[in-house]
Amino acid sequence: MSIVVSIPGVDKTNWWIEQLQALLSNWTIRPIHDPGDVEAVTYAVVWKPATGAFLPFPNLKAIVSLGAGIDHVLADAELPRQVPIIRTVGTDLTQRMREYVALHVLRHHRDMPAISANQRERRWAQLVVPPATQRSVGVMGLGNLGGTAARTLASLGFETLGWSRTKREIDGVTTYAGQAEFADFLARCEILVCLLPLTEATMGILDADLFARLPRGASVINAGRGPHLVEDDLLDALESGQLSHATLDVFHVEPLPSEHPFWAHPAITVTPHIASLIDAPTGSRIVAANIERFETTGHVEDLANAERGY
Amino acid sequence: MSIVVSIPGVDKTNWWIEQLQALLSNWTIRPIHDPGDVEAVTYAVVWKPATGAFLPFPNLKAIVSLGAGIDHVLADAELPRQVPIIRTVGTDLTQRMREYVALHVLRHHRDMPAISANQRERRWAQLVVPPATQRSVGVMGLGNLGGTAARTLASLGFETLGWSRTKREIDGVTTYAGQAEFADFLARCEILVCLLPLTEATMGILDADLFARLPRGASVINAGRGPHLVEDDLLDALESGQLSHATLDVFHVEPLPSEHPFWAHPAITVTPHIASLIDAPTGSRIVAANIERFETTGHVEDLANAERGY
Repeated sequence: MSIVVSIPGVDKTNWWIEQLQALLSNWTIRPIHDPGDVEAVTYAVVWKPATGAFLPFPNLKAIVSLGAGIDHVLADAELPRQVPIIRTVGTDLTQRMREYVALHVLRHHRDMPAISANQRERRWAQLVVPPATQRSVGVMGLGNLGGTAARTLASLGFETLGWSRTKREIDGVTTYAGQAEFADFLARCEILVCLLPLTEATMGILDADLFARLPRGASVINAGRGPHLVEDDLLDALESGQLSHATLDVFHVEPLPSEHPFWAHPAITVTPHIASLIDAPTGSRIVAANIERFETTGHVEDLANAERGY
Repeated sequence: MSIVVSIPGVDKTNWWIEQLQALLSNWTIRPIHDPGDVEAVTYAVVWKPATGAFLPFPNLKAIVSLGAGIDHVLADAELPRQVPIIRTVGTDLTQRMREYVALHVLRHHRDMPAISANQRERRWAQLVVPPATQRSVGVMGLGNLGGTAARTLASLGFETLGWSRTKREIDGVTTYAGQAEFADFLARCEILVCLLPLTEATMGILDADLFARLPRGASVINAGRGPHLVEDDLLDALESGQLSHATLDVFHVEPLPSEHPFWAHPAITVTPHIASLIDAPTGSRIVAANIERFETTGHVEDLANAERGY
């Protein structure tokens, strides 16, 4: 009855092993590269596991993803696809994400990039924007994170829209679903927030076609995954004025390479994948509780669906 | 039965006269420098009136301030102090202020100034901050604007504190009152927001003594009035590290002179007095309704108290 841990970085791996061991005292917990008896391993706790990482373990009951997304697990071409994947979602994660979305939507709404540029030039210019009640903001993806973000935007007074694969009902939010309602949704989004899971269907969704369907001068915030965005299409849309600004927290390659054009682009705000993260002490408690519950009941709330992709 | 309008700028004055005339068709509405029969003037609608502006009008029933503050009216040494002052407070004003406060508190909380500086240097550094639930934010001044701002911060998850002259009760906000509880309040504020009215008692309140009572590394947001702040004390507190950042929307002299040291200070964010303003079409409706109600009943909700100063 043992657990292996696979996380980039020796210090982080050791930290997680210590935390989990303190909470799961009956279990043997070891790094994935030094697993001991491979037949005894029934759980793997992972972030960005290597290709083929799970092949040595014939008796895995579940893989635990240290985050809300499972794309980093599904990226493994040799993933044993019958093994359930447990997502790690906590109140810290949703709290941090709603802060990030509120901050950056307000920052776009109130034109802070222009105000900051004016400060650098010592220019006093009283830009006037409408109140949030006259500003439409759309959230793509209405799961745990997107739903909470949409509710937060509505509470700040924004005219809030939401779009998801299947229909969701959220108080104070006008919701759209599926491909059939996508264009109607986009046509109203002055500020668009992407919080979709990364799947084959959503990869590259932030592309020239989508940008063209937004109102002219709209802005985009991507706190989903880097591959949601077609980078060259974003640069073209900013160049043409179809988009006015983009704030990006996620990238195709992370850390974003220092020579990448996004860093110095005047209409792009780069944040280093910090929109949301699981607070480590909280995260270890969630993981330990999920493993214990799955071991006892064969089920947990945050079970992902490998076929669906999230 | 006539109204005079005194607002800096000919275009703005004419615009307000047109808007008010459309709503108050029985009234004669003229610019203050061309009032016609001075004895017929019973209301003056003003923003930053000149000293002695009201002396020609012996029959004024009320002065209407085009804003929540009345300090710009009380600044007139020759003000007829027995004339009631009507404040203009609308939902647009409170909405815009809560947006500003939410934006800038989140910006300090999530360390955006450092993230922006890192972007300029193409540096990927994942600064981790606690969730808002572990961050204490204090609001000084709990009137219309401050109370709404405090409720908004609480709804975003912040541990929210409030301080006012007299005790207020606000759901989800820990409130303090008066000089006796001021030090206890300040000792807990990691981010301090000033939304006080400007009075003799609050002038210069943001000084070295106050900064020293905040937790080390705290930050300050001033969206009250410029003279609340002792500018040199702020520069000293930033220099010593007692304060980490300040965001200022109001200044002793506005527009902030181009040679002022605040413009280029790396730890000061300058916004050009845009935290909140009354949307012009909404504002004229509020002013017209207040004049009609005062004319009929002798009372309106937003009546200021000249002795108290707000």
